Amino acid sequence: MSAPIAPFPQVDHQRTLFADGMALDCGAVIRPMAVAWRGYGTLNAAKSNAILVCHALTGDQYVAEDHPVTGRPGWWANIIGPGRPLDTERYYILCANVLGGCMGSTGPREERTDEAGRGLGEPWGTDFPPVTIRDMVRAQRRLMDHLGIRRLLAVIGGSMGGMQVLEWAATFPEMVFGAAPIATAAYHSAQNIAFHEVGRAAIHSDPDWKGGRYWEDGRVPAQGLSVARMVAHITYLSEQALTRKFGRRLRGASALTFLEDVFEVESYLRHQGSTFVRRFDANSYLTITRAMDYFDMAEEHGGDLSAAFRGTRTRFFVASFSSDWLFPTADSRALVRALNAAAANVSFVEFQSDKGHDAFLLEEPEFHRALGGFLAGCADRLGV
Amino acid sequence: MSAPIAPFPQVDHQRTLFADGMALDCGAVIRPMAVAWRGYGTLNAAKSNAILVCHALTGDQYVAEDHPVTGRPGWWANIIGPGRPLDTERYYILCANVLGGCMGSTGPREERTDEAGRGLGEPWGTDFPPVTIRDMVRAQRRLMDHLGIRRLLAVIGGSMGGMQVLEWAATFPEMVFGAAPIATAAYHSAQNIAFHEVGRAAIHSDPDWKGGRYWEDGRVPAQGLSVARMVAHITYLSEQALTRKFGRRLRGASALTFLEDVFEVESYLRHQGSTFVRRFDANSYLTITRAMDYFDMAEEHGGDLSAAFRGTRTRFFVASFSSDWLFPTADSRALVRALNAAAANVSFVEFQSDKGHDAFLLEEPEFHRALGGFLAGCADRLGV
Repeated sequence: MSAPIAPFPQVDHQRTLFADGMALDCGAVIRPMAVAWRGYGTLNAAKSNAILVCHALTGDQYVAEDHPVTGRPGWWANIIGPGRPLDTERYYILCANVLGGCMGSTGPREERTDEAGRGLGEPWGTDFPPVTIRDMVRAQRRLMDHLGIRRLLAVIGGSMGGMQVLEWAATFPEMVFGAAPIATAAYHSAQNIAFHEVGRAAIHSDPDWKGGRYWEDGRVPAQGLSVARMVAHITYLSEQALTRKFGRRLRGASALTFLEDVFEVESYLRHQGSTFVRRFDANSYLTITRAMDYFDMAEEHGGDLSAAFRGTRTRFFVASFSSDWLFPTADSRALVRALNAAAANVSFVEFQSDKGHDAFLLEEPEFHRALGGFLAGCADRLGV
Repeated sequence: MSAPIAPFPQVDHQRTLFADGMALDCGAVIRPMAVAWRGYGTLNAAKSNAILVCHALTGDQYVAEDHPVTGRPGWWANIIGPGRPLDTERYYILCANVLGGCMGSTGPREERTDEAGRGLGEPWGTDFPPVTIRDMVRAQRRLMDHLGIRRLLAVIGGSMGGMQVLEWAATFPEMVFGAAPIATAAYHSAQNIAFHEVGRAAIHSDPDWKGGRYWEDGRVPAQGLSVARMVAHITYLSEQALTRKFGRRLRGASALTFLEDVFEVESYLRHQGSTFVRRFDANSYLTITRAMDYFDMAEEHGGDLSAAFRGTRTRFFVASFSSDWLFPTADSRALVRALNAAAANVSFVEFQSDKGHDAFLLEEPEFHRALGGFLAGCADRLGV
């Protein structure tokens, strides 16, 4: 066993505080509400060159710089920077930690407040109200208002980030010139809910979770959160990617032994699990997976997904990856059909890749070229 | 929480004891070795009408009768009986609990013995030696010798049962007239190993597991084993089956709440997990999943799968199901190619089903007709 992990690592995140708070879909009011965020590049005088990046379940706002907790490069650093698809010489790239997250935005790890906004001296924990994808988007909208950005050149994101893109386009259509929902779907499937539930069950069954009040003992439910990460990680990869990376290769000796970690793939998964718990909060994981599970845009619009986009003037760039079985191409096609039924301006590409769901984060030159082209097209149109 | 679960429920299984024991692939000798088994129908005078059914990971020998622990119908009762595909008026159906199992055959739950076969007064637990699929088959072979059965009319099984079928055909070809490997593969894939590893990690991280010595406290690692079962169960179903069964239906109220078990699929999975721990031993689960993970018939034969079947006179019936993503049709096709390369007598059918891997256990009339036809053909040929 390694050294104990502090439940609440002290990191000085850049945050904007909204003292009046915000009402959530569930009816609760979060007051005050903090939104932690990062920006890359320069916002132009007309404030017309902002691109909002929405992060996925376990991502955060450190999208294009070294992470303050892990020290590792930003999760989309490969496409953000001068001359890259998200060109910081031309665009101002913004990313906010989602509401319910654990990197500085208000969430289960932050101090609980009462309705008047007074601090109660302990973290929210599992008393943090349920948030929806739409709540996350409303919080980002508050940040845009604060920054004086009235229209985003584009909103882009993969996986849960793509869900936020769709909510942005449906909820604040006049603010979204271009929308790029990537490797995502307009609802979370029964299988995806089931995989999330396994992760939650693993966290709940860890005695160190203590009903969510793990901070009281200065511990975290590392084992449960690690197992949750392991199962999720499998769903992010394809069978081909796993086989190419590890195959059935044994670790070290080839002798027949049933000790732990005999296959390389096991060692890799355990490593993934154990590093994850150092940067992510278990209660946040519970909160955000629930938000994904609840996401169903058709249901929000009377069962008709196209109604969510009726009359939209947003340009859509829908992208999927051929080996993604978590958000398969069929989900993107269903979304495209609904957008077409709403007479939206939409282009759709399925990129050939054997890297599974994770492809949207990896080196996929064709995808990067297409995404860069879409953004440049939006910028040209806006005269940016 | 429910009442504690006894680690070793007392059930009087029908067993055959081999006092001289058996050497395993790992070099260890299990002495004595018990094989628990059940038979249905009547062995004819020529002992030529026996069909051996090999069970899957969490199956057992109670294939066609109510289970002595759970009281539920046998796992293949739907195809075994008078007039059914496995017609007990014509065939004698045998099934043995696998070596390493927990329904009476020697395994981690049984009393540990020394090399001389003396009981050591405590269970094997994690000191039970690693077993392979071939070890399981060798133990079954001992049972056939004991029963005086020199040739099996057929050996059949799905999933890990199918792995045993392949080992039977490769290791004792003269004893296998017909072989039906169903919904299986000649090796365990990296993705399948990864899913098993998540289950093992969940068991290992349960403090009630106590390094495998849970019997000392009269407890079982119920939470960990339950999570292991939950993740495995998802892999047994198809996305379509999950959607048809549960979709995104909420359980009870439709109010936005993040309490546990809000979706029906979650409630179902938790139920699957909690009932499983009442009948299955955690150390057995670790032992048997390892045996599956190690299974790689090509590697056992110098990297050439067809070499495993060179010169075989066994008739093969290979079956897969279109929505099975745990053992996809591609795996069966690879097996069929190897059998063809060995000039074997093989027929192959992919059955259209949306029930996933579990289809081999469910009502699939076309599959049942084809399997029944294959067995009847073998019997006709043998004059049974």
